[in-house]
Amino acid sequence: MEIAQVLLSLAVIFILAKVASRAFAKLGVPGLIGEIILGILLVNIVIGDFDLAKFLDIKCIDPSGRVYQETHGIIEVFSELGVIFLLFTVGLETKVSDLTSVGKAAALVAIMGVIVPFIVGFAFITITDGDFYHSMFMGAAMVATSVGITARVIKDMKLMDVKESRIIIGAAVIDDILGMIVLAIVSGMAKTGEIDIVNVLIVSVTAIAFVLVVLLIAGKVIPKIYNNVQQKKADRILHDPNYIPPGYNMFVISLGVCLVFAYLADVVGLATIIGSFLAGMLFADHAWEWKLEEKFESISTFFVSFFFVYVGMNVDISVFVEQPALLVTAVIIIVLACVTKFVGCGLGAKIAEPHMEMSSVSIIGVGMIPRGEVGIIVALLGTGIIVAGVPALSSEMYASIVLMCIATTIIAPPILSKLFSKKYKPMYEIRDSDRL
Amino acid sequence: MEIAQVLLSLAVIFILAKVASRAFAKLGVPGLIGEIILGILLVNIVIGDFDLAKFLDIKCIDPSGRVYQETHGIIEVFSELGVIFLLFTVGLETKVSDLTSVGKAAALVAIMGVIVPFIVGFAFITITDGDFYHSMFMGAAMVATSVGITARVIKDMKLMDVKESRIIIGAAVIDDILGMIVLAIVSGMAKTGEIDIVNVLIVSVTAIAFVLVVLLIAGKVIPKIYNNVQQKKADRILHDPNYIPPGYNMFVISLGVCLVFAYLADVVGLATIIGSFLAGMLFADHAWEWKLEEKFESISTFFVSFFFVYVGMNVDISVFVEQPALLVTAVIIIVLACVTKFVGCGLGAKIAEPHMEMSSVSIIGVGMIPRGEVGIIVALLGTGIIVAGVPALSSEMYASIVLMCIATTIIAPPILSKLFSKKYKPMYEIRDSDRL
Repeated sequence: MEIAQVLLSLAVIFILAKVASRAFAKLGVPGLIGEIILGILLVNIVIGDFDLAKFLDIKCIDPSGRVYQETHGIIEVFSELGVIFLLFTVGLETKVSDLTSVGKAAALVAIMGVIVPFIVGFAFITITDGDFYHSMFMGAAMVATSVGITARVIKDMKLMDVKESRIIIGAAVIDDILGMIVLAIVSGMAKTGEIDIVNVLIVSVTAIAFVLVVLLIAGKVIPKIYNNVQQKKADRILHDPNYIPPGYNMFVISLGVCLVFAYLADVVGLATIIGSFLAGMLFADHAWEWKLEEKFESISTFFVSFFFVYVGMNVDISVFVEQPALLVTAVIIIVLACVTKFVGCGLGAKIAEPHMEMSSVSIIGVGMIPRGEVGIIVALLGTGIIVAGVPALSSEMYASIVLMCIATTIIAPPILSKLFSKKYKPMYEIRDSDRL
Repeated sequence: MEIAQVLLSLAVIFILAKVASRAFAKLGVPGLIGEIILGILLVNIVIGDFDLAKFLDIKCIDPSGRVYQETHGIIEVFSELGVIFLLFTVGLETKVSDLTSVGKAAALVAIMGVIVPFIVGFAFITITDGDFYHSMFMGAAMVATSVGITARVIKDMKLMDVKESRIIIGAAVIDDILGMIVLAIVSGMAKTGEIDIVNVLIVSVTAIAFVLVVLLIAGKVIPKIYNNVQQKKADRILHDPNYIPPGYNMFVISLGVCLVFAYLADVVGLATIIGSFLAGMLFADHAWEWKLEEKFESISTFFVSFFFVYVGMNVDISVFVEQPALLVTAVIIIVLACVTKFVGCGLGAKIAEPHMEMSSVSIIGVGMIPRGEVGIIVALLGTGIIVAGVPALSSEMYASIVLMCIATTIIAPPILSKLFSKKYKPMYEIRDSDRL
């Protein structure tokens, strides 16, 4: 491990990310777009003999498999921690009642946002390509939702409290469960040729149980423990005025819980960010008292830019330079990905609440569009499963899916922030971490 | 990169480190000792088939060379960032005048603290082993000082402002320059058989120039720029009462500067922590205004425990189990390392200020004892240089040096905190990051 190289790369990426973010925010575009574009540039700029990716020791992914450099691995971990801490802070601002109050709408948005994209993605590849497994994995990748991107827009605009935000966050949690079930079915079929119902059931029940148990702990158990501890402290002080209750550093405790829950979520098959989001909810009632938001803000400021840069780093332009025809398919897939999520989720919202204004429906529809890293993970899984001697997902299909994931991630935030600021004008404010 | 594995290891190490730190602090021993011991346990515990180091994907260093696991590399980077941020916060509390006011004492402490350990270390190996290069590298390793450990004790006890602390920090900076010059001479001789005076001069001048330039910027340039900017803002507001000056996030800027300076220090041959310490000094005058200490506190809380755990992770007990005779040499070296630094630095302080109380002299002497990772880096370099077909430093000698570095790191803090709290009783307080 060449520490100097790692320090140089971290410093360069961190500084450029913050400059890019500030520059884009000044133009009225969400800062994260600047960070994603920076990531794309970092891995694709070669001027004469100067290869920026080599200089920074970050190598892009080539479609046939990953090639890691040392520093690339560090950036990947930082990126993962960045989005984990980001979703933790979203959890800190979300009480259980915030989710249950929008439960029906969130569920319908998630369900329709899974069904419509899957069917359309499956159908499109069946018609144009014909391969069954390509179609299945394209469907599964279309289903994915990466709530990290939307969460950052919502947080940057300080709109965590509005109903649309709640519905999107709630729907994203449910969407992740549904997406995981779809993936379990699809990859199970690719591996064994049939649906392993028992396995799918186990996977589903575990994931749902995990989410419900954490919500139960957050809503019922934690308040009881907290009140008990406070009561005991008060009693003790009543009897002995000199008693000093032992101090605990809640920041350290919540950091530990955040990491553990991110890991546990991964173990039960969910995204790590669902785990950290739920972990944040455990502390939501007292986050203010313990200054957790402020403290996580500092740590998140350091890590989160690496996430958005890393998203961009996954784009390998060269595949499309070599096979321009691929671009046509990719563009169609991007359009389908945007339209199906928007229509599916919008429909779900309208079914749940027929009187919802179109401005709210649009916000929810657009907020669910980004596929981010979740779609890429699905595609990666597809390239790893071998069916009859060939990967279940071809490298061309993989490249298209990656482009779709990146494109949806870039397209949604500016539209979302426009829609939000149209509806909630005065609350718009650039967040600190977006600033240089 | 298996993200789940990394998350699990980070979570386990972070939580155990904080528990260990709290437990030791409760017993009145500096919390960092708990973290170092945890690190030793992590890489050495094997219960039946259960190898904790394998479970956490961290593999210890074996004396013949490093064997890295993926997660080990992540922990190494976190550890490096931890001590970099720690020294940055020390820099935030250090003004240029704080250093120049103790300049003479710091310089003499550093010089004597280099001469005495080098001569004694060189002489001991010449007598017992006879190999010239072994003696040279042992001398160079004895010279090293790792200010990270002492800095944490000082910060934990909130004694940054006392004179002894200033002298130790100043001496550590000078010591690092001198140590680097010694290392340049020693490794140059091992590589070419003679002293390359030109190279040694270039190395020395570069390092000294780097430190002086940064101090000049901190002391003269920054105050001028700051006053200029404030003046311009005031003028502008006077002419246009509606003018809102552009806000800059000083936390983001200082974070970037911290990383860049850590890298630059490495480039000129100094320790990265000297760079981040100097970077912190650039912001010292306005750290309070920009809430930098508070914000770096959060980020440091996350990273710094990994540093002390990582120090412990470098101890491979098995070498000494296999060759118990080595332990005798190692113990003698440890004793010599402690005594020579204590006597050398104490002597330096006494020469500079003959009327200094013995309690102050002792604090300075003990504060300079820890060799930490700096000594290990010297030893690693020695094993990497091949002289006449064999490494300039044998693997047995390497193991002894590593043990010496760890032992001095563990021995000094409890004594230092005792000496400090005897002299400055009422100021002792357990720091937040030490708490669970």
